[in-house]
Amino acid sequence: MATADIRRIDLVEVAPRDGLQSIAEPVSTEEKIALIAGLLDAGVRRMEIGSFVSPKAVPQMADMREVVAGLGERWTDGLAVLIPNAKGAEIAVEAGCRALVFVLSVSETHNLRNVRRTVGESLDQLRAIAAVMARTPGIALRVDLATAFDCPFDGSVPEARVREVFEATRSIVPRAEFALCDTTGRADPFRVRALFAGLIAADPTVRWAFHGHDTFGMGVANAFAAYDAGVRVIDGSTAGLGGCPFAPGASGNTATEDLVYAFARGGIETGIDMTRLLAVSDRIAALPGGRTGGHLRTVPRDRVTLVR
Amino acid sequence: MATADIRRIDLVEVAPRDGLQSIAEPVSTEEKIALIAGLLDAGVRRMEIGSFVSPKAVPQMADMREVVAGLGERWTDGLAVLIPNAKGAEIAVEAGCRALVFVLSVSETHNLRNVRRTVGESLDQLRAIAAVMARTPGIALRVDLATAFDCPFDGSVPEARVREVFEATRSIVPRAEFALCDTTGRADPFRVRALFAGLIAADPTVRWAFHGHDTFGMGVANAFAAYDAGVRVIDGSTAGLGGCPFAPGASGNTATEDLVYAFARGGIETGIDMTRLLAVSDRIAALPGGRTGGHLRTVPRDRVTLVR
Repeated sequence: MATADIRRIDLVEVAPRDGLQSIAEPVSTEEKIALIAGLLDAGVRRMEIGSFVSPKAVPQMADMREVVAGLGERWTDGLAVLIPNAKGAEIAVEAGCRALVFVLSVSETHNLRNVRRTVGESLDQLRAIAAVMARTPGIALRVDLATAFDCPFDGSVPEARVREVFEATRSIVPRAEFALCDTTGRADPFRVRALFAGLIAADPTVRWAFHGHDTFGMGVANAFAAYDAGVRVIDGSTAGLGGCPFAPGASGNTATEDLVYAFARGGIETGIDMTRLLAVSDRIAALPGGRTGGHLRTVPRDRVTLVR
Repeated sequence: MATADIRRIDLVEVAPRDGLQSIAEPVSTEEKIALIAGLLDAGVRRMEIGSFVSPKAVPQMADMREVVAGLGERWTDGLAVLIPNAKGAEIAVEAGCRALVFVLSVSETHNLRNVRRTVGESLDQLRAIAAVMARTPGIALRVDLATAFDCPFDGSVPEARVREVFEATRSIVPRAEFALCDTTGRADPFRVRALFAGLIAADPTVRWAFHGHDTFGMGVANAFAAYDAGVRVIDGSTAGLGGCPFAPGASGNTATEDLVYAFARGGIETGIDMTRLLAVSDRIAALPGGRTGGHLRTVPRDRVTLVR
């Protein structure tokens, strides 16, 4: 079982980053700040608020500096930004960010299609990012290992390959947090638990996280399975915002509210107020062009209780 | 862990009973038979095909005899019918049924509202059913313990009450299969696993089943948790047919295809062919007036693979 405190979990909110970037229509800076503030008010302690990427690549993230600046006194070090390279890391740190997220795929094909680099080139970028971090003490890094279970192009990803890419990244940034990401949503709870359990048994000192999707209906089950293996950091996207690139209308990211429900009822403290979270969920669901999912938002509010 | 074979699970299909009874518009006898035959062709080994109840109470089930007769050579003893009382048991046995299902609620309030009897009166009926069974050898009985986790009227149901009602029923029909039913869908995987684990530890010889709903997004997670505790019989409804009485539009029964996906990928044999099952799921989803749910039906078919 767990090496970590078994009565608490950190849910990492990704709607402002992974969610909003899936919306083609521009969302105003004010709306982004309001959403982030609403999520903080709901008790979210960790959140990915956006990406310092090229505005050409992701136009939705063009106002990243303004979002960070606009949060003003609401800023906390639990707010993280995705950075694609060392240049992005420099800009993010300059803007005041203290938590960075770097994504590389376990699958070579997916990495090439997603970030237009080989895995080896992504590891080179990670080295350059580590150099930036070395110049500014106190920067936290999370490495997202995308397609850690399944690749949309190559199918099932062998466990040996996951270990190989993980060890390669860890040798560069040994104190980072590492997330196994079920990018396609095709992972099942048996696999999620077994993979994490094996990695945690091999070295219980690594800080692991799980990023799941609900496209195939496995979202909550996979999160439960990851928790069961000892993972204490799990991603969610309020309203399930994020969609699924290959399945229009299908749900994408696992909804934070569904995760809060499962864990809070299980007696696991998330720090999140469901009523406030569902209010933000309604606001997100009202954004034009957003693909949403999740279950809790669709049941009558008077039926939702976290006490059993 | 499990006392049962850990590589196989029986998924009990309930769409023709629990699902169809939620549809107000009449479904033809031919369509019912075609759905049941399609599910058998997909590899379903156990199924609730309907109820021998008063046509006044459930008009959709008025042609129950015709459905049973119409199955002809397709008939197997894995096909079960719900019976509300001893009279229903007699009619079902006469019609050729060899597997009966009796429902009573753990919650007194829910039992009164659902079947208009006290729990004590339901136990009296169960005694009368046992007497009918004693006259015809080879009849299998399953007892559904509804509201075993949560009651729509009274909220959380204490574990001691579950044990009490279970023991009372078991003393009457010791060789029955017993199902804990998450009638509202509000149970969480931590509770499901803990409750079953406690009961199985107390007596590993009892044959347990789990009936769950996906209204709150917990369907697959709860089934996984039940399996984890040692349960090897789990209900599903193809296309998630069944809806939710208090939440129009919200999903109800956990979709069989979502369960097949989770277990088959986990290496647990279900005997069900996903392609054929999804074809039946499409047919069910096309029924007028049906409330459907589930995830697998909504993703592109070429993305669905049970091999990982």
